[in-house]
Amino acid sequence: MGDAPPQEHLVVVLPFRELTDIFEDIRDKFPSIRLTFIDPRSTDMSGPEVKDLWASATILSTLWDVPEIEEAPRLKLIQSIAAGVDGMIHRPIVANTDIIVASASGIHGPPIAEWVVMNWLVSSRLYDTTAEWQRNHNWNEDKNSLLDKIEDNVGKRVGILGYGSIGRQIARVSVAMGMKVLAYTFSPRDTPESRRDTGYIVPDTGDPDGTLPISWHSGSDKASLHAFLSQNLDHLLISVPLTTQTTKFIGAEEISILSKSCTRTTRRPYITNIARGKVIDQDALIASLKSRELGGAALDVADPEPLPKDHPLWEAPNLKFSPHVSGLGIEYMGRAFDVLKVNMRRLERGEELINVYRRKKGY
Amino acid sequence: MGDAPPQEHLVVVLPFRELTDIFEDIRDKFPSIRLTFIDPRSTDMSGPEVKDLWASATILSTLWDVPEIEEAPRLKLIQSIAAGVDGMIHRPIVANTDIIVASASGIHGPPIAEWVVMNWLVSSRLYDTTAEWQRNHNWNEDKNSLLDKIEDNVGKRVGILGYGSIGRQIARVSVAMGMKVLAYTFSPRDTPESRRDTGYIVPDTGDPDGTLPISWHSGSDKASLHAFLSQNLDHLLISVPLTTQTTKFIGAEEISILSKSCTRTTRRPYITNIARGKVIDQDALIASLKSRELGGAALDVADPEPLPKDHPLWEAPNLKFSPHVSGLGIEYMGRAFDVLKVNMRRLERGEELINVYRRKKGY
Repeated sequence: MGDAPPQEHLVVVLPFRELTDIFEDIRDKFPSIRLTFIDPRSTDMSGPEVKDLWASATILSTLWDVPEIEEAPRLKLIQSIAAGVDGMIHRPIVANTDIIVASASGIHGPPIAEWVVMNWLVSSRLYDTTAEWQRNHNWNEDKNSLLDKIEDNVGKRVGILGYGSIGRQIARVSVAMGMKVLAYTFSPRDTPESRRDTGYIVPDTGDPDGTLPISWHSGSDKASLHAFLSQNLDHLLISVPLTTQTTKFIGAEEISILSKSCTRTTRRPYITNIARGKVIDQDALIASLKSRELGGAALDVADPEPLPKDHPLWEAPNLKFSPHVSGLGIEYMGRAFDVLKVNMRRLERGEELINVYRRKKGY
Repeated sequence: MGDAPPQEHLVVVLPFRELTDIFEDIRDKFPSIRLTFIDPRSTDMSGPEVKDLWASATILSTLWDVPEIEEAPRLKLIQSIAAGVDGMIHRPIVANTDIIVASASGIHGPPIAEWVVMNWLVSSRLYDTTAEWQRNHNWNEDKNSLLDKIEDNVGKRVGILGYGSIGRQIARVSVAMGMKVLAYTFSPRDTPESRRDTGYIVPDTGDPDGTLPISWHSGSDKASLHAFLSQNLDHLLISVPLTTQTTKFIGAEEISILSKSCTRTTRRPYITNIARGKVIDQDALIASLKSRELGGAALDVADPEPLPKDHPLWEAPNLKFSPHVSGLGIEYMGRAFDVLKVNMRRLERGEELINVYRRKKGY
C-alpha cells in the first residue's frame, strides 16, 4: 500500500447562503477532495474551529477573508470570487508569500457589457422619455421630435481603455451594433499571440483572439494616453484595474482632449466607467458634464463607495449612475466557481493556472 | 446631333423640411436628373402644378402620397421611404399597374435592433429600479436582492419570426451577447443562396449570408409555427410583415405553446413585437402578461394606433411600450435615400432593383 497523496482541502469562506448545487458539482468532479464551507457572518473567524480549518486548507475560495501567513502552512491557492483582488493585496499572506492568488476575472464580461450597452441605449434612445409617455398613456406627444434627437451606433467609434475580458465583451457587442473599436493596453500587443485573451472566458462571448479592434494602442505614459484620446472617439470606456498608475487616470486634461478631438456635430463624447471610481477625477467629470464638454456618462462605480447622499455626482446632468451592480446576476456564483474548477484541475495536472494575480504588476 | 434620352424626373413628396444635403448629393451623383421636392403639408396636391409634376415624373420618392394611374404616364419607380409599403398597396397605381414599387426595407435594422436590445436589458437588468435609486440618492437599498433577480443573456434562445433585415440585425447583436438564434421564414431556406439577404443592408450590420442562426425553420401553416414555438425559447421576436396570413398570427394558443415549452425555471418567455400591432392578438397578450404565462413583452406597435388613452394595454404588467418610434433617428433619411440612390443607379444600368414589393406575395 503506497502513500496516498495528501488530501486537498478546499475551504470556502463566503458571506452568502451555502451554494449546495455548486458544492455538489465540485464534490462530483473532484471526488477525493474535502470541502468545507463557512459563512463569516455566523462564524467566529478567530475561534479554534476556523484555526483548525486554516491548518489543513490547501485551497481557499473567498471574497476577502484570508488567514495570516502562519495560520495556513499548507495553502497553495487563494481563489477570489471577485474580478479584482485589490481588496486583499495588502494582507501579508498575499503581499509577502508566493501562494498563488487568482481572481474571478473573466466572468463579468457578459453582465457588465449588458449594463454598458443598456446605458448607452437608454441615453441615446431617450428611454426615460418614452417610459414616461407609457406611464401617462400618452401615444406620441413630441414623437416627431425624437427623429432629430435619437442617433444609433453605426459607425460610432469607441475607445476601450484596458482590453481585458470586460472590454472584449463590450467590443463584441459594439461591433455587432456597427461600431468601430479602438483598444488601449499598457503593454504593447503587437503580435497575434499577445492579443489573445489567456484568462477565463465565458463560452460564446468576448474576443478570444483579439481580432475585433480596428487598431491597437499602448503605453504607460501620458503622451500615449493623450494620443489615444485624440482619435475622434464617440465613446470612451474605462475598464482598467485600479493601480497607483491608474488613479485619476482620466482627469480634466484627458476629458478636454477627448472632447476637442471629437468632430461629430450632433453629439459630444460619452464616458463609461465600470472599473473603479478612483480611476476618474470625479470633480472634473462632473464639471465636464455640467459644461456639456461631455455628452453624457454612465458610471457603475464612485469614489467613495457608498456615495454619500448629498454628493453632487448624483445630480450631474446626463449621467446614468448605479451602485456597483453591473456585474450582478444569478449566473455570478456558477461562473466564479467555474474559474475555481478550472484552476483546481490545472493544479492537479501541474499546469499553469489562469487569472493569476501578478504581484509585480499589481493586477 | 442624336436624340438625348428622355430626362429622368425625380419627384420627392415628403411631409418634412427640404433635405438640402441629401438632394445636393443626388444632383451630384446623377447630374442629368431633374429633382423636384414638394411638401404635401403646404401644397395643393390636386392643383395644376402638382398635375404638371406627375405628368413628367419618372421616379417618385414618397411616404404615402401617390398619383392616380392616368396622372403619371411616365412613372417607372415608386420608392417608399418606409420599411413596409402596406400603406399604399390598395391605391390603384400600386395594385393595378406594373410600376416597380420598392420599400426602404433594410434601413431599420440598426435602430430597431437597438430598441429591442435596450428593452430586453432594461427589463432583465431592472433599470427602472436603479434609476429610481439614482433619483433618490440611494446608494444600495436592496442591492443584494438584485443578485437573485438579474439574469444575463448568455445561452438564452431567441426565436426570430421573419428573418429579414431587422431580424438579422437583432440576431447579430443577440449572438454577440452569447444567445442562440433560431430563424423562422415562410418559404424554406435550405440552401446557402436562399439564406442570403438580397435587400439593402446598412454597412457593417446584419447577417448578409444568413450564417448566424443555429437552425432554420419554415412553413406557412399553423403546425410549422407551433413546432417552431415548441423549442424552449426564452425570447420570441416578431418581425414579419403584416399580411392576411400574419394577422393575429400569435394568439392565445401560440403563447401557451411558447410558455409550456420553455423549461427555464427562473424566467418565463418574453415577446417582442416591432412589426405591426395586428400580428398579435392583443387581448391574448395582455391576458398572458397578467397570468404570468409570459415573463414580459416589449411592443413598439399597437392595434389601433394611436392607442386610446384608456386602453388596457398601457397598464399590462411587465410591458415595455413605445409609440412606434423604434425606427426613428437622425440617420433615417440619409439611409432611406441611400436605397433610392442604389435603385436609381440600377435603373440606369438596366439591373434588377432591390427591395421590390412583390404584388403576389403581398410584401
